[in-house]
Amino acid sequence: MPEAPYQGVTIVGVGLIGGSVAKALRERGLASQVVGYARSEATAERLRKLDILDSVETNLGAAVADAEVVVFAAPVESIPQLIADAAPHCSQQTLLTDAGSTKRRLVDDVHLVLEGLDDPPVFVGAHPMAGDHRTGAEAARADLFQDALTVLTPTGHTPIESTCAAEAFWQSLGCRTLILSPKEHDQHVARASHVPHVAASAVAATTTEESLPLTATGWRDTTRVAAGSPELWREILLSNREAVAEGLRSLSTEIDAYLGALDEGDGARLQKLLQQGKERRDAMGS
Amino acid sequence: MPEAPYQGVTIVGVGLIGGSVAKALRERGLASQVVGYARSEATAERLRKLDILDSVETNLGAAVADAEVVVFAAPVESIPQLIADAAPHCSQQTLLTDAGSTKRRLVDDVHLVLEGLDDPPVFVGAHPMAGDHRTGAEAARADLFQDALTVLTPTGHTPIESTCAAEAFWQSLGCRTLILSPKEHDQHVARASHVPHVAASAVAATTTEESLPLTATGWRDTTRVAAGSPELWREILLSNREAVAEGLRSLSTEIDAYLGALDEGDGARLQKLLQQGKERRDAMGS
Repeated sequence: MPEAPYQGVTIVGVGLIGGSVAKALRERGLASQVVGYARSEATAERLRKLDILDSVETNLGAAVADAEVVVFAAPVESIPQLIADAAPHCSQQTLLTDAGSTKRRLVDDVHLVLEGLDDPPVFVGAHPMAGDHRTGAEAARADLFQDALTVLTPTGHTPIESTCAAEAFWQSLGCRTLILSPKEHDQHVARASHVPHVAASAVAATTTEESLPLTATGWRDTTRVAAGSPELWREILLSNREAVAEGLRSLSTEIDAYLGALDEGDGARLQKLLQQGKERRDAMGS
Repeated sequence: MPEAPYQGVTIVGVGLIGGSVAKALRERGLASQVVGYARSEATAERLRKLDILDSVETNLGAAVADAEVVVFAAPVESIPQLIADAAPHCSQQTLLTDAGSTKRRLVDDVHLVLEGLDDPPVFVGAHPMAGDHRTGAEAARADLFQDALTVLTPTGHTPIESTCAAEAFWQSLGCRTLILSPKEHDQHVARASHVPHVAASAVAATTTEESLPLTATGWRDTTRVAAGSPELWREILLSNREAVAEGLRSLSTEIDAYLGALDEGDGARLQKLLQQGKERRDAMGS
């Protein structure tokens, strides 16, 4: 049996994403040792029972000390502090990456943390665009990343070989990869995910209770994501404030164009607006 | 075998809805004679081959002359003229109903048409909330109305016995019924269907091409209805201009509330907005 490409991989934050990284590594025989970090002993015990990791630590320094790659899959707002706590225990050769869903603020904060250290490890931000309506390590799947897109967000400070190493790591799990700047990533993900979430939530909230009996499949599709966790989405939206606001202003301008056409009874203008929406929608299949 | 409850039912405009009325009538043994009206001989011939009607006429007067109930299931903007052409051939005992998706303008126009006639038939507006992504009589199903909601929109001019007769007719096809004024109907359907359609289309149109690769299930759900026919939706939106505009203004106000919370970094306010959207969404199941 050939040697696994990675000696040690540590996952900090073992939920759906972190657990799926662990399962993919194991199923593909990619790592000699997969270690999980959990803050509490209770969580550690729960994870041990799932048997998807070789060991589970509650001491962050011990968890990362022997790792070649450390994947931070904790909530996005907690990642800079976790990296600040873990980095002094890592060697310069350790690759740090993450699974946070917004990148500009995170990458800036992590850069500040690492530049204060002697011989720090290198961080390459990543956002695997994969998920499930279920959460937690119990829902983890070895094939979660199969053909999913992972966006990598190196900066001018990132050595090219580290970017390549991060690409190789995420590709080894089954992902396609795309390199964007942190700012580009956040703008695109605002349009692709955060603005649609706010729109869905705003449509749901402005549907009067008396109108609910008249809703059908169309309303249910359009508002489906509004059922997501308000706590989780509060953090996502706050972590990408500027780009979400910019996207919402575009959306408001588009709605104003509909209002103008309706007020003037301008059927040709209405049809053109509907046609533009349909063309963008049709580009993405059903 | 007991006599069918209706001697003759005529369907003016035999597409998905009209064809499904015909199939439901036949499967439930509700009418001695179901007649279809088609404007062109080519359409009439196509409908004859489907064998869902007892006869198909291209002369509107002949099609409605012996009907107890006439169902207008043609595009909403064409219904007043069809009623103007058909009504002089109907008796005072004939019940006219329709399947148009907006009601205020239609009901006003039909009232003007009928009040100009001697001994006119009675019209009771109806909107069966049923559909399919497929269109045309070929997609008609006998069970399309099973447990669907049909909103009836009588006015102060409508005799109570005619409203009851219209309720009985739509219920006989399997529908639940709800009585609303034409204005209430249009306001509710704007919130439940037309505003979500515009929101979906506006989200799709303002997703930049570069952002499309980062879209996932959430974007596809939120924008799904934007793939609908621009011509059809132009007519629906124009026929309900005032109520759609009012609903879009509420939506803009809600989006402005998100923008305010984002600009101020007000997490508590954001979470409250998201919670309100989630509660309304959760009320309608998945």
